[in-house]
Amino acid sequence: MKLPAAYKLKDIAVIINCEFEGSPEHIITGLNEIHMVEAGDIVFVDHPKYYDKALLSKATTILINKKVECPIGKALLVSDDPFRDYNKLVRHFQPVSYSLKPISETAKVGKTSIIMPGVYLGSNVTIGENCVIHPNVVIYDNCHLGNNVVIHSNTVIGADAFYYKKRAEYFDKMISCGRVIIEDDVEIGAMCTIDKGVSGDTKIGSGTKLDNHVQIGHDTQVGKMCLMASHVAVAGVVVIEDGVTLWGQVGVRSDVKLGKGSVLLAQSGLGEDIPAGKTFFGSPAGEARSKMKEVAALKMLPELIKKITEK
Amino acid sequence: MKLPAAYKLKDIAVIINCEFEGSPEHIITGLNEIHMVEAGDIVFVDHPKYYDKALLSKATTILINKKVECPIGKALLVSDDPFRDYNKLVRHFQPVSYSLKPISETAKVGKTSIIMPGVYLGSNVTIGENCVIHPNVVIYDNCHLGNNVVIHSNTVIGADAFYYKKRAEYFDKMISCGRVIIEDDVEIGAMCTIDKGVSGDTKIGSGTKLDNHVQIGHDTQVGKMCLMASHVAVAGVVVIEDGVTLWGQVGVRSDVKLGKGSVLLAQSGLGEDIPAGKTFFGSPAGEARSKMKEVAALKMLPELIKKITEK
Amino acid sequence: MKLPAAYKLKDIAVIINCEFEGSPEHIITGLNEIHMVEAGDIVFVDHPKYYDKALLSKATTILINKKVECPIGKALLVSDDPFRDYNKLVRHFQPVSYSLKPISETAKVGKTSIIMPGVYLGSNVTIGENCVIHPNVVIYDNCHLGNNVVIHSNTVIGADAFYYKKRAEYFDKMISCGRVIIEDDVEIGAMCTIDKGVSGDTKIGSGTKLDNHVQIGHDTQVGKMCLMASHVAVAGVVVIEDGVTLWGQVGVRSDVKLGKGSVLLAQSGLGEDIPAGKTFFGSPAGEARSKMKEVAALKMLPELIKKITEK
Repeated sequence: MKLPAAYKLKDIAVIINCEFEGSPEHIITGLNEIHMVEAGDIVFVDHPKYYDKALLSKATTILINKKVECPIGKALLVSDDPFRDYNKLVRHFQPVSYSLKPISETAKVGKTSIIMPGVYLGSNVTIGENCVIHPNVVIYDNCHLGNNVVIHSNTVIGADAFYYKKRAEYFDKMISCGRVIIEDDVEIGAMCTIDKGVSGDTKIGSGTKLDNHVQIGHDTQVGKMCLMASHVAVAGVVVIEDGVTLWGQVGVRSDVKLGKGSVLLAQSGLGEDIPAGKTFFGSPAGEARSKMKEVAALKMLPELIKKITEK
Repeated sequence: MKLPAAYKLKDIAVIINCEFEGSPEHIITGLNEIHMVEAGDIVFVDHPKYYDKALLSKATTILINKKVECPIGKALLVSDDPFRDYNKLVRHFQPVSYSLKPISETAKVGKTSIIMPGVYLGSNVTIGENCVIHPNVVIYDNCHLGNNVVIHSNTVIGADAFYYKKRAEYFDKMISCGRVIIEDDVEIGAMCTIDKGVSGDTKIGSGTKLDNHVQIGHDTQVGKMCLMASHVAVAGVVVIEDGVTLWGQVGVRSDVKLGKGSVLLAQSGLGEDIPAGKTFFGSPAGEARSKMKEVAALKMLPELIKKITEK
Repeated sequence: MKLPAAYKLKDIAVIINCEFEGSPEHIITGLNEIHMVEAGDIVFVDHPKYYDKALLSKATTILINKKVECPIGKALLVSDDPFRDYNKLVRHFQPVSYSLKPISETAKVGKTSIIMPGVYLGSNVTIGENCVIHPNVVIYDNCHLGNNVVIHSNTVIGADAFYYKKRAEYFDKMISCGRVIIEDDVEIGAMCTIDKGVSGDTKIGSGTKLDNHVQIGHDTQVGKMCLMASHVAVAGVVVIEDGVTLWGQVGVRSDVKLGKGSVLLAQSGLGEDIPAGKTFFGSPAGEARSKMKEVAALKMLPELIKKITEK
């Protein structure tokens, strides 16, 4: 999330009422979660295990729950509860708002695009030229569609990330302030969900086609010309490179990478990276030929055990 | 389902035109399916295999297709088709009705709650304070939401149970007369379905969070502070205790119990109870460490078979 | 797809501006994809591997990218790009059109049927008597429902087939011109998708019942009195005979056949035909008793490997 302007460290510290380390004039221009940070951003960290990752990331301001040594050229915001104060900043710069008109007044739709009945377009949604948005599609605030995009009925673009911090007595929600960006020539089936980024963008690359009931988690990056069959479920913060094919009911864990042109066969469950060009299968998924040999070997196993036992 | 008042055995027998055993003045206050019965309820049974279960249940009136010995303090309604007559009673006390306004006149919404465009709220729906119901959500008749509940777009709360009796020439539908109860601080993703109870309540405990595309079957009880990832499918009449985590694409069979704090890893298919605190994996699911050993062993099997064959 | 009238070969050749082989007066009455062709139809083929299949099919006109020998009584349309010209013919006979009213003026609804709020009915949709279409259901153009059909909320009937031809730089969409036919006494849960046929009909047989989140692909034929539990995903061009049961989260590959009364246990992934009456399990699925023996044998494998290694 970009801030509406460049802010000074001292001013941000006032908003969340916390101490800071570094120049009071240190500049802050954004707010991001660790996977998406850039120079100018605040990142938050509240567990010593991840201190180094945050301090060494591209973020130049670290919202942290301990006064540690500040890296050169960076600044610290020292808070007793960085998660709470991160959410506080998100809400400060992006106040809650629910557009109660079916098509928000701030939504922009290309002249040649067709918006069918029952569609909801939230605030600041933009839709390019020559798109078709079928009945009862919902697009949450701040999502952007390119040209020649088709969205089939009842699909939901931009719902909140599924991202909670476990507190003693409740789950504390990470407020999503990111967006969904859908590039040109994408077609999305009926009943899909593409969640917004927590602080960055969830992206669907140009020419990609999704079948029905596909789930794409927050901050996931889908490349160009990918294909996903029905009931595929991709978690958050996944990187899917160009030309990847996911067959029906495939599941992909968060924070893995699928190399260019890789393929996951139906019902596979991926828990690790796939190299470019490889085909994986199984749950947990592995290289497909090896897995098929396992399937074949398993068929022989009952007879084998019988023989060994009879010896 | 509670009856609108206390009825006498003889009056119920008139409605379904059947004989009875027991005091004509015997009191009936409700109507429930075997999993949910309480004192005062009618339960139905039409197969000798289940006679004892029904006769010994907490139900005090048994709608049955054979004149058996009546337990002390109970009563029998003797029908040639208990399933048909059970449905007849349901329809008598809950006549078919479809509210054709998007927001029924009998729906009650807390003052601080936000109902977005395209939402349907059926008859007698109640929504607490500080809720957000996103666009195009549908809530069927008689469902109740607590405070601080968020429901994302296109989710359907309270559709009918998937429950049919096979007749020679058709499937005979069990009419659902139950409800969905969603407690405080629950968040439900986009595109979820939570079916109403057949005669009791489907319940989502306070603080529980569901990702997108989650299915919860009829009469299932979900505890407090549970997490369910995308595409989880839980069948009917399941008991999920507090603090349970179901990862993506997990399936749970009907009529099993998941102990407090148990975990099902992604894509697992559960066909039995899980004890409290245990982690299960696989399809069919078993204790996770054992299953991971099986996965590792299976990887070695093709080579092992090759060696044995070459001997 | 039936053409609005009988056309002559020479007239069709003019529409797509191509050469032809055969009598200029040769009659064409329809347009179909290879799985659904009948006499009078055009079929297209653009790969030598499938030439024979197309030439020997029931289609009497073959749109082909090579001037081959024409079978007796048939005709050829010789195009440099049969896929493109097939789409061109589809669009010629079924021009793009989007009905922008929630209930199209050409939709016909039986007098005793109930259409609830937020429903979209496209052009030429017909709904029989005594149906209930729950809130926010979407039915695309040209779909037909029989009598006593119930469709639960947010289900989408008739979205486009997921069918693309890979070009060098993009996926070229096969334009769907088929329909969905739902026979009498069918009940479809919430959040289901039933895609239209590419050129023929997707069909749900009478008395069949679908739970929530079920996907039925294009041109798939579902028989009478089938049951499908939640999150079942059936690909395109599948034949499911009468009385088939698919349990939760089952996946079925395209172009396979499920024999009468066959059963797929939960989470199975079917990649081949099932004979009538058989029960299959697993991913990939096989005969259930064999698969259960494999599951049991696999449990013993870690111990077995330990023993062998220790020898």
